Amino acid sequence: MAPSTFPTEPPDPRTVFDRLDREAERREADGLTRRPPVRSAEEDVLDLAGNDYLGLTNHRAVTDAAASAARRWGAGAGGSRLVTGTTELHTELEDELAEFCGTESALVFSSGYTANLAVITALSGRNSLLVSDSHNHASLIDGCRLSRAEVRVVAHLDTRAAEAELVRRPHEGLLLTESVFSVDGDTAPLREALRVCRANGAALLIDDAHGLGVLGEGGAGALAAFDMRTAPDVVATVTLSKALGAQGGAVLGPRRVIEHLRQSARTFVFDTGLAPAAAAGALAALRVLWGDPRRCSRVREVAEGLYRELVRRGVPATRPGAAVLGIPVGEANTAVDWAAECLRRGVRVGCFRPPSVPDGSARLRLTARADLPPGRITEVAAVLAASAPEEVLG
Amino acid sequence: MAPSTFPTEPPDPRTVFDRLDREAERREADGLTRRPPVRSAEEDVLDLAGNDYLGLTNHRAVTDAAASAARRWGAGAGGSRLVTGTTELHTELEDELAEFCGTESALVFSSGYTANLAVITALSGRNSLLVSDSHNHASLIDGCRLSRAEVRVVAHLDTRAAEAELVRRPHEGLLLTESVFSVDGDTAPLREALRVCRANGAALLIDDAHGLGVLGEGGAGALAAFDMRTAPDVVATVTLSKALGAQGGAVLGPRRVIEHLRQSARTFVFDTGLAPAAAAGALAALRVLWGDPRRCSRVREVAEGLYRELVRRGVPATRPGAAVLGIPVGEANTAVDWAAECLRRGVRVGCFRPPSVPDGSARLRLTARADLPPGRITEVAAVLAASAPEEVLG
Repeated sequence: MAPSTFPTEPPDPRTVFDRLDREAERREADGLTRRPPVRSAEEDVLDLAGNDYLGLTNHRAVTDAAASAARRWGAGAGGSRLVTGTTELHTELEDELAEFCGTESALVFSSGYTANLAVITALSGRNSLLVSDSHNHASLIDGCRLSRAEVRVVAHLDTRAAEAELVRRPHEGLLLTESVFSVDGDTAPLREALRVCRANGAALLIDDAHGLGVLGEGGAGALAAFDMRTAPDVVATVTLSKALGAQGGAVLGPRRVIEHLRQSARTFVFDTGLAPAAAAGALAALRVLWGDPRRCSRVREVAEGLYRELVRRGVPATRPGAAVLGIPVGEANTAVDWAAECLRRGVRVGCFRPPSVPDGSARLRLTARADLPPGRITEVAAVLAASAPEEVLG
Repeated sequence: MAPSTFPTEPPDPRTVFDRLDREAERREADGLTRRPPVRSAEEDVLDLAGNDYLGLTNHRAVTDAAASAARRWGAGAGGSRLVTGTTELHTELEDELAEFCGTESALVFSSGYTANLAVITALSGRNSLLVSDSHNHASLIDGCRLSRAEVRVVAHLDTRAAEAELVRRPHEGLLLTESVFSVDGDTAPLREALRVCRANGAALLIDDAHGLGVLGEGGAGALAAFDMRTAPDVVATVTLSKALGAQGGAVLGPRRVIEHLRQSARTFVFDTGLAPAAAAGALAALRVLWGDPRRCSRVREVAEGLYRELVRRGVPATRPGAAVLGIPVGEANTAVDWAAECLRRGVRVGCFRPPSVPDGSARLRLTARADLPPGRITEVAAVLAASAPEEVLG
């Protein structure tokens, strides 16, 4: 095992990696190479590209809790949650998260991505049918790909199409949707979705990543907003990295579902537990929100305000169902240039282009933040409008 | 979207969740229900169940760095690495990690699990062949399941069987193996593996989760140990949550491979960036290791010492290739009882049983730690031997 000279053949000049160069050239020619910005801690930019809806990522109570937890519990969880990676901090977070959202139980993962993989694979088998909205997040799509179930993708928000699939396989279906879709910020008709599930003995999985902290009274999320907190046939996934300002994901639902995940979900059993600092940060954020439910109504007022001010200036923003506003652009390069110009003027917005969105439907994405003062709403709208490409303005 | 009464049908009494109760009963009857320990911060237990090989999780420099980063950068990264989630901290960690391990480039993920999903799916396509060792970790298996490639699982450590697969599909293969296998701690014949890859124009993916910090000079990992640092056809994945004491994962390799992942790997593009506290903790751990390479040789001395003392007492430990020792037991209940007795005597060891390992092959797992004083090696071996079930002692 000691270092050694390496006597084997030189690599074949052709390897499976050669195609990467050709793909990079094609990406560059199509204007699709991403050059992500590198943030400095001192930057003087208004960030409306992230998902810090409630302004809690840098809230003193949250960062203090994260810092203290790193010192008290160590920088990492040390192992799988099943082996040695469950601390009292993890169970405290799970208990309070379930209480906050009103579900029987909750289970925390190292990311929302792995939470979605867990719930889909653990709740489906060869005899299951997964019915998935065509705008669902990559993690839900990957969960479907990982499962051994039959998978049907249905048109965006088309409950009737979903029903047509579920009716074929009574008592075997799981309908997958987001509460608030991540790119455009539109919302799903969840009551209608649950109705078609129940008519066919199916269960409903709601990805509430962009709903927790924004929807429902006090930010308790989509389950609260749609009165589904104690529904025996509904499961929700959330993230700890958006409204709660930290990192990680969680699954919320009936106790027997959560216990099943704890026992068998691969991304729970075979992944290192969430770092204590992230768990403590999310827990502190939850407590801030508990004590100050106005943050939740404030973020929706900001979203409405941004929408009104943008539309008034001819910027075709989509009406926000929660805290996300989409602005359709079209060509990838146009969207990239617009976002770059906004950044030059001090406002960072998200820019989505293929392959994250379909060809020709590049767009900007703005997130409302509860900590945005009213005066800055007008300022943001003015920046967007002043730098908008002509063909976009209505 | 306001709270509302819920007028739809009551749930069908039969749902897709009903089978969960039956599965729970079966698990209970088979003695396979897991009741993971909940750690308190004050516990007086020697933890040899986690993966804190170098004793860095609670090292002052590491926890200080994590705490400071939470205060300076916030409790979370705020968004996808491509949108707003890349801080100077992330690029600093990637640069130093690549330099430490000797590769051209590195890319950090929120977990080792998502790093493995990324590298396998992004480096394979419909025309690829994935050849995977039968003992590979769940995240490598899930990566294969997610890919669209042909997947062949070959017998554990059987390079000849791997070659027989690769030879069928010249220039299309990717061979997947761990450097140090997570449960038994045995090591793969990596030179031989690369030889058969090169003979067939295939690439080699090494999961070095349990090698980084333990193998190679100064803990630079398997690529250093096997002189593959700059090989154009080798990629390694590592975790930041084991020897580096924090959370997260990374992919190491040629620049064009890393750039391809940055542009297209789904668990990079669509996942929130690693929390600043975890990135800073791992970076600080790397620097501790850089300044004190003895930690790496020390952990291997401790592993050898544990092995010798256990075998001397008739406990059938496997010879450690790195810092992991396995102890085959057989029946799940026997292994659970043994681990519980060790814990009562102050030593936490890992206990692996189905479905993590095949039926009838439950085992204990001990990890060596660089910070274990020599006197405690004998003590640990004595605890294991004194509480061992009769049928296990040789």
